[in-house]
Amino acid sequence: MPVVAVIGAGQLARMMQTEAIEVGQSIRLLAGATDSSAAQVAADVIIGDYTDLEDLRRAVDGADAVTFDHEHVPTEHLRTLISEGVNVQPGPDALVNAQDKLVMRKRLREIGAPVPPFAAIESVEDAEAFFDAVDGAVCLKARRGGYDGHGVWFPKDRGEVGALVAKLLEAGTPLMAEKKVTLVRELSAMVARTPSGEVAPWPVVESVQTDGICTEAVAPAPGLSEQLAQRARQLAVTIAEELGVTGVLAVELFEFEDANGQADIAVNELAMRPHNTGHWTQDGCVTSQFEQHLRAVLDYPLGSVDTTAPVTVMANVLGGDTDPAEPMGRRMAQVWQRFPQAKIHLYGKTHRPGRKIGHVNLSGDDVEQTRIDARAAAHYLVHGRWA
Amino acid sequence: MPVVAVIGAGQLARMMQTEAIEVGQSIRLLAGATDSSAAQVAADVIIGDYTDLEDLRRAVDGADAVTFDHEHVPTEHLRTLISEGVNVQPGPDALVNAQDKLVMRKRLREIGAPVPPFAAIESVEDAEAFFDAVDGAVCLKARRGGYDGHGVWFPKDRGEVGALVAKLLEAGTPLMAEKKVTLVRELSAMVARTPSGEVAPWPVVESVQTDGICTEAVAPAPGLSEQLAQRARQLAVTIAEELGVTGVLAVELFEFEDANGQADIAVNELAMRPHNTGHWTQDGCVTSQFEQHLRAVLDYPLGSVDTTAPVTVMANVLGGDTDPAEPMGRRMAQVWQRFPQAKIHLYGKTHRPGRKIGHVNLSGDDVEQTRIDARAAAHYLVHGRWA
Repeated sequence: MPVVAVIGAGQLARMMQTEAIEVGQSIRLLAGATDSSAAQVAADVIIGDYTDLEDLRRAVDGADAVTFDHEHVPTEHLRTLISEGVNVQPGPDALVNAQDKLVMRKRLREIGAPVPPFAAIESVEDAEAFFDAVDGAVCLKARRGGYDGHGVWFPKDRGEVGALVAKLLEAGTPLMAEKKVTLVRELSAMVARTPSGEVAPWPVVESVQTDGICTEAVAPAPGLSEQLAQRARQLAVTIAEELGVTGVLAVELFEFEDANGQADIAVNELAMRPHNTGHWTQDGCVTSQFEQHLRAVLDYPLGSVDTTAPVTVMANVLGGDTDPAEPMGRRMAQVWQRFPQAKIHLYGKTHRPGRKIGHVNLSGDDVEQTRIDARAAAHYLVHGRWA
Repeated sequence: MPVVAVIGAGQLARMMQTEAIEVGQSIRLLAGATDSSAAQVAADVIIGDYTDLEDLRRAVDGADAVTFDHEHVPTEHLRTLISEGVNVQPGPDALVNAQDKLVMRKRLREIGAPVPPFAAIESVEDAEAFFDAVDGAVCLKARRGGYDGHGVWFPKDRGEVGALVAKLLEAGTPLMAEKKVTLVRELSAMVARTPSGEVAPWPVVESVQTDGICTEAVAPAPGLSEQLAQRARQLAVTIAEELGVTGVLAVELFEFEDANGQADIAVNELAMRPHNTGHWTQDGCVTSQFEQHLRAVLDYPLGSVDTTAPVTVMANVLGGDTDPAEPMGRRMAQVWQRFPQAKIHLYGKTHRPGRKIGHVNLSGDDVEQTRIDARAAAHYLVHGRWA
């Protein structure tokens, strides 16, 4: 049976391990520590640093495919591994688009994918010029390393733009700016693609963000026209094909109203791995994103993306300000008592405010009731009391 | 988070590990070898012998609950552990009924559960008398240790009964005999029960046996009247309650025609752990038997046993006479190519004729087509060619 080496040992690798076990595979992990989320639950763990070529070489030795639970492995190391015969999926030419927000936007513009107006920001003058060009609707982003609202700023006026950009450039942060869209909501279009070129897009979901962190996903996105859903799925397929993505690709989308008041979409971010907005597939879809990712990077045929319920809601469990006195096990019991159909997923992580420590999937017939119940379940797991 | 110690490291423990990972738990395994099915995929593995009290003590140290992937742990050791404060689920008073077929049948008769006529066999004379009493319709069984058709004999005449019983008693095999029923088919009624007394019976399934080995399970059992299904579920609940079973209980049933030609049921065997006829729950039910078993032994509220598809068929993958030249990974690819909705589960076991090395779950709308497809998928995984 094939061995997949996964670089990184967070919750995404942990949930890949779950699926790998069932299909008889062996996951090899490169983990930073023995108690990291995935390392707790795997037998074949290499401890090392993903920025160190020698550690990477140890982790990928003999693996049939190498993949990732984050985008931060230096692409030069990946090119070296490929030159040594290692099967890296997705490859560095695709991955660079998930590492650098400016590179990604340029590439998407090239292939005709919709993105909000953007500019490279290499000076205060660049920033001020962009501010004027978009009538002050500026979103400033670090080109690399941002996540969960980190590395994104919304300066309020021209003075704040200048001061912020000066400070960030001084600190060595490469920057870009984007026109802030008038958001209706956020969507996520996910697709898996194999090296042979097979693609399988999942239903498009609505993604709810709170303070820049995904807190909820609703599948399929309520009230989305079939026409726009089809456009979003096709956009994800096109991006995967044009950028040469293999494995799972998440295309985070803005839904906004165009000048005529029509619903339209533009790309916000890309992730080339399983993604928070795809966790619902574990319990609401024939093939979960984690199984599909493993199949895709091994160039196996992809699984059915049929849903198994009319609606599935994923609610994130984010560490609260304090950790409740009631142990997590008893909190789970309370949730299961009230919602026997709740699927709780926990990552083996200790409490820290705002940290993603788990999620709840709940399937049902009624969108609003399912959302209310999923949120209530997640709230109890965080706070140890009902909302 | 609680730690569950599992004694035994076969495929049942492996599939418990899958579910444990998702709910944030840590499974501790007592395994006979580092390459056993579950030990391949777990981080916390104690190597030892389940008949050795010291090894058991090492494995259960600090665990919140202790459970099993087989019934063969000596009950005297379990009693010792309990006296030392260990939380053993299910306990030895229940387990003895899954260890000794004669003890079980006596107990079931006591509580009014239907069982075919039976007798203890301690001499050739006992056997001949039973042969006469049931007009030659004799099934001879080893009281302990039988599985998958091993330890069961169907002697054809009085002379064969005598010779067989003499030989087996001489070899020290404790025996019992049972009247062979005129079988319509086999069914399986499964239920989970917590130490607090909550019960959750799954839909009753049809179980297909070939040469004494389960090869297929169809959920729910096609054409079973709701009345008989309800009786079977209630029977499983009653047995769980009367015998004090905790965790998952499988009640294997004979369906036969009574003297009036009416469909009736009798108990064949009991298993006090997840069971082959419950594997379909992984992909056809909100809560799988493996998650439910962990929840039950930890005395958590039980999960929903609602189905997620009109029909789910489980087909076992049993090692064929030879191992095909095509590697298992490529065989999986062929199956997925033809059946994108097939859920393949493999146990990390090497080929041996007749050995259970995996199973396929397939859900659909049409019972017959789903059976045909599930069998075809399993056949390919075994033989590397379509039937």
